[in-house]
Amino acid sequence: MSLKIALAQLNFLVADITANSHKIIQTALRARDELGADICVFSELAITGYPPEDLLFRPDFITQTTLAVADIATQVQGIDVVLGFPEATAEGLYNSAVVLRDGAVLCVYRKNCLPNYGVFDEQRYFKAGHDISLFTVKGVTLALTICEDVWREGMLLKNKQAGANVVLTLNASPFHAGKMQLREAIIQQQVKQAAVPLVYVNQVGGQDELMFDGASFVLDQHGACVMRAAEFAEQLSVVEFINHQPLPTHCAPLYNEVASIYQALVLGVRDYVTKNGFHGALLGLSGGIDSALVLALAVDALGADKVEVVLMPSCYTQDMSSEDAITQAQTMGVRHHVIPIMPAVNAFTEMLAEVFANTAPDTTEENIQARCRGVILMAMSNKQGKILLTTGNKSEMSVGYATLYGDMAGGFAPIKDVPKLLVYALSRYRNSLSPVIPERVIERPPSAELAPDQVDADSLPAYEHLDPILERYIEGDQSAHEIIAAGFKPEDVMRAISLVDRNEYKRRQSPPGIKITTRAFGRDRRFPITSGYRGIDSK
Amino acid sequence: MSLKIALAQLNFLVADITANSHKIIQTALRARDELGADICVFSELAITGYPPEDLLFRPDFITQTTLAVADIATQVQGIDVVLGFPEATAEGLYNSAVVLRDGAVLCVYRKNCLPNYGVFDEQRYFKAGHDISLFTVKGVTLALTICEDVWREGMLLKNKQAGANVVLTLNASPFHAGKMQLREAIIQQQVKQAAVPLVYVNQVGGQDELMFDGASFVLDQHGACVMRAAEFAEQLSVVEFINHQPLPTHCAPLYNEVASIYQALVLGVRDYVTKNGFHGALLGLSGGIDSALVLALAVDALGADKVEVVLMPSCYTQDMSSEDAITQAQTMGVRHHVIPIMPAVNAFTEMLAEVFANTAPDTTEENIQARCRGVILMAMSNKQGKILLTTGNKSEMSVGYATLYGDMAGGFAPIKDVPKLLVYALSRYRNSLSPVIPERVIERPPSAELAPDQVDADSLPAYEHLDPILERYIEGDQSAHEIIAAGFKPEDVMRAISLVDRNEYKRRQSPPGIKITTRAFGRDRRFPITSGYRGIDSK
Repeated sequence: MSLKIALAQLNFLVADITANSHKIIQTALRARDELGADICVFSELAITGYPPEDLLFRPDFITQTTLAVADIATQVQGIDVVLGFPEATAEGLYNSAVVLRDGAVLCVYRKNCLPNYGVFDEQRYFKAGHDISLFTVKGVTLALTICEDVWREGMLLKNKQAGANVVLTLNASPFHAGKMQLREAIIQQQVKQAAVPLVYVNQVGGQDELMFDGASFVLDQHGACVMRAAEFAEQLSVVEFINHQPLPTHCAPLYNEVASIYQALVLGVRDYVTKNGFHGALLGLSGGIDSALVLALAVDALGADKVEVVLMPSCYTQDMSSEDAITQAQTMGVRHHVIPIMPAVNAFTEMLAEVFANTAPDTTEENIQARCRGVILMAMSNKQGKILLTTGNKSEMSVGYATLYGDMAGGFAPIKDVPKLLVYALSRYRNSLSPVIPERVIERPPSAELAPDQVDADSLPAYEHLDPILERYIEGDQSAHEIIAAGFKPEDVMRAISLVDRNEYKRRQSPPGIKITTRAFGRDRRFPITSGYRGIDSK
Repeated sequence: MSLKIALAQLNFLVADITANSHKIIQTALRARDELGADICVFSELAITGYPPEDLLFRPDFITQTTLAVADIATQVQGIDVVLGFPEATAEGLYNSAVVLRDGAVLCVYRKNCLPNYGVFDEQRYFKAGHDISLFTVKGVTLALTICEDVWREGMLLKNKQAGANVVLTLNASPFHAGKMQLREAIIQQQVKQAAVPLVYVNQVGGQDELMFDGASFVLDQHGACVMRAAEFAEQLSVVEFINHQPLPTHCAPLYNEVASIYQALVLGVRDYVTKNGFHGALLGLSGGIDSALVLALAVDALGADKVEVVLMPSCYTQDMSSEDAITQAQTMGVRHHVIPIMPAVNAFTEMLAEVFANTAPDTTEENIQARCRGVILMAMSNKQGKILLTTGNKSEMSVGYATLYGDMAGGFAPIKDVPKLLVYALSRYRNSLSPVIPERVIERPPSAELAPDQVDADSLPAYEHLDPILERYIEGDQSAHEIIAAGFKPEDVMRAISLVDRNEYKRRQSPPGIKITTRAFGRDRRFPITSGYRGIDSK
C-alpha cells in the first residue's frame, strides 16, 4: 500500500495569520493536486509562524488563529493537513499539532517537551501535554510529535511501542553553525533506537534574531536519510511510503560551514528588510572589511538596485580606504555617496569648546566622529525609507569596541553574531564565488580610523587570540582561570573578559542581528547590566 | 517561650558575591548582638541578589556563591541564618533557602513554584522542588517557603498541616503601583486559610528594570499585619514570638500610590547610577514637563551637586522654555549649560543638501535636531563619566513619539514606564513637598519644539484619551474592538494601536527604565519586531 506524505517547508511572516493561512491552503492544495499526496505536513506553529512571543497572551490574536485553523479545515478537502497552532483550552494554551481531514479535526497532539533555554521561552506561554497522539491514513498509523519532543530520549520509542508505523515531527528549529549536522545526528540516534521512520518538517526563514534553515528530511527506520529538502529556501516535497518504508528520493547536499553561515546571513537580511516593509537598505562603507562584507550580503540579499552606500571620510580616513570603498561599490553596481563629516565634527567641537575647556582629548572626540556618521546615515534612512544596516561584528560587540548611536546605529546588524576571524573567512568565501571585495580590504590591518594611524591592535588583543578567548568566555561559560590554563596570555584574557563584562549596556541598545553561533547576544544571553560579577575575579 | 526572628531587608548589588556575603554576615551579627534575635531571615537568592539571570549558567559564578554560603556558615555562630541561594546539585540548579546553624547546614528548602511569566524566567534556570522543609528553634517549628510559593493556593495550609507553627518566606517581589496592597491581600488570604503566622522578607532596591520595594511584614495567624518594614529602604527588624504568636510592633505606613511611584523612581535612579559606578548624572532640560520631572528625580536621588543639565535651544525653542528650564535648574541648585544646536544642525543640512535635493522637509529634519542634542549630551557624558538620563515617558515610548539616538539616547530612562498623565501627577506631588518645577511647565501644552508652533496634540490624540487607550492595549491586552466599545473614539484607538504595533523596533533599542506598571516595555513585554500582527485588524 502506498502512502504519500508531503513536507511543506515554508517561510512565514510571524503573526500574519491571514497570509499564513492562505499560504497553507495553497500549499496543501498543490500537494494534493500536483504531488498526489495523502498528507501535507507543515511546521510547528505554522499558522502564526515561530516564535509569536507575547502575542500569544493576546486573546484577539488567539481568536484569529483559531478561526484561521477552522477556515483551513473547511477549505482543504481530500488531503490530511497536519499543522502546528496555539491551542486555547480552559486550562491554558498548548503548543499543538492538529490533523484536519475533510473539514473536521481528526486529532490533536500537545507538545510534551517545552524548551525554555537558550532562545526558547516556551514555558512562558504553554502548558506541557503528556499524551501521545496517533492517527491512521490508508492503514498506516502515524504519530505526531513537535520539535524538542524528538530530541528527548525515549519519545520515539514510546510512539513506536504504541503502534506508530511512521512518526511526523513539526519543527521550528533555529540555525547555528553546525546545527543541521547536530540535529540529524541526534535524531538519527533516536530513530535507530526506536526503529521507526521519521518525517521532519522545519520552518525556513528569518525572524528577528533567529534564522530557520529548513533542510527538512526523512529518515528510514535505520536512521538513513532518504530525502532532504534545501537549506534556506522554501520547498514542497513528497515522499512515498510503501509498507511503512520511505522510498529514497532527492537529498539536497548540505552547505559547508562557512557557506551555510553566508546563506543564513543573506536570507536573514532579505527577510528582515522585506518582512519589515523597507524599500531597500543603506550602509556606511568605510573601506574596512566589516562594511565590505555587509555590502556583499546586502546586495546578494536584495539586489544592487535596492542598496546604496555612503562614504563619510574624516581627516583620519586614509585615501586607500575611500578608493577601496568606491571600487567595491562600483564592482557590485550600487549607488554611492561621499559626505565628508568634518563640517559637523568641527561644529560640535566649537559648540563643546567651553564645556570641554581644560580637558584632554580622549575617546569622546572619536565618538563624536562616529556619531556624526550615525546622524547622516539615519537622516538618509529616514528620508528614503531604507533601513540602515549596522556593520559591527561579534568581536566588537563583545568588547564594546563600537560607538553607541554612532557605528552601532541602525535597524539591523547582519554580522552582529559573526566574530572577526569569521568575517575574514566569509569575505574570502564570497570572493571565491565572484571577486567583489578588494583584496587590500582583506589584507590590511583593521582600523576604526578615528585617530591618527589608529589600528584595532592598539586597543585590543590580536583577533587570533581575542576571538577564541571570547568564544570560550561567552559561548563556553569558561572562567578566566580555565581560559588561561588553555594557553592564552593572562593579560589578553583579563582585558577581553573585563571588556565583555563592562559593555553589556551597549549591547542592550544594539539593533537585532542574526544568530549564527551557539550563543548570540540578545534573547540567547540574558545578562544583567547592573552587576558586581567580574569574570577576572573568578576561579 | 520567646523566639525572636529578625527580618533583614537589604539592598544587594546583583552578582557582587563578596560584598553581599559581607553584608549578610554583618547583618546577622547585628541581629544576634543588637537585637538578641534567634534567627535572621534574608531575602530570596540573597547571596547573589535577584535576578542574576544567565550568570546562573556560569560554573565559576555558582562555585563562588557556594563557597560564600559556606563562609557565612563558618563566620556566623550563635544565630540561625536563613538565606536564599542557587543550590547546585547533580540533577540541576534549585532556587533554595538554607538554614545555617553554628557552622553547619541545618536544612535546605527548594522553591516549589517557579514563576515564568511577566519579568520572571525562573524555569530557564531552576528545577522545581517538591518537598516542604521544617526546622525547629527553641521548640518552635518553622517552615521555609520562597516568594511565589505563598501566592499559590494551599501551600501555607500544607506547611501548617505538616506541623509548622510559623512560616518564613524569602522574597524578591518586584514593585509596580499597588503591588504592596495586592501582595498583602493575597498572602493574608492564604494565612487566614492556614491559620499560621507568616514572616515575609523582601529584597529592596533597584536592579536594571526592576525595583524591589521592601516593605517586609509579619502577619499573625488571623492575617493581621503586626509589623511592617519601610518601603524603599534597607531595614533590620525583629519580631518576638510568644507561644508561636507574634507580638505587635511598628508597622511602617504605606505611601499612597503616586508617592510610592515617586519613591520607586528616586531609588531606581540612585541605585542604577551608583551601582553602575557613575560619578553623577546629566540630562537635557528642555523646559518641558518630562525633563523637569527627571531633573527632580535625579536631584532627589543623587543630590544637586551630582547632577547637571544642558539647555540646547534651536530656532524652534520658545523663550519661555529656556526661562523655565533655567528657573528650575537654579531652584534645584544644579549646574546648567546652554549649548545652542543650530551650528551643528546647519552643518548637517548643508552636508545633506545634495542627497536631499528635490525632497520635501519631513520628520527627517526634526530627527536631525534631536540627534544633534544626543551627540552633545553623549559627548558630555563620555567626557565626564556622568550617566545621561533619558527623559522620555511611557506614552511616547508606546507610540514612538521620540527620536532613536536623539532624545532616546542615554544610559537610563527613569520615566520610561510612566504614562504622560502620571508624569503630571508625579510633578504635582513633587511640588507639594517643595516647589521645584515651575508652574508654567505643568500648565502649558506639551510640545517637542522640533517645528514651528508644534504641539504633541498635532500628532497624537490628547493624553486624556491616549493614556487609557494605551493602558488597555498594552497592559490589558484588549482588542481595538473592546477599547472602542469602552467608549473611545475609533480614530484615536486605531491611530494609537497602529503606532504601538509599528514602533517595537525603537523600543528595542531604548535604554532600560524602571517598571512601575503591571506591564513595562522590556523583559515584561516580549513582542516580535518583525510581525504581521496589526491590532487594528483584530476583532
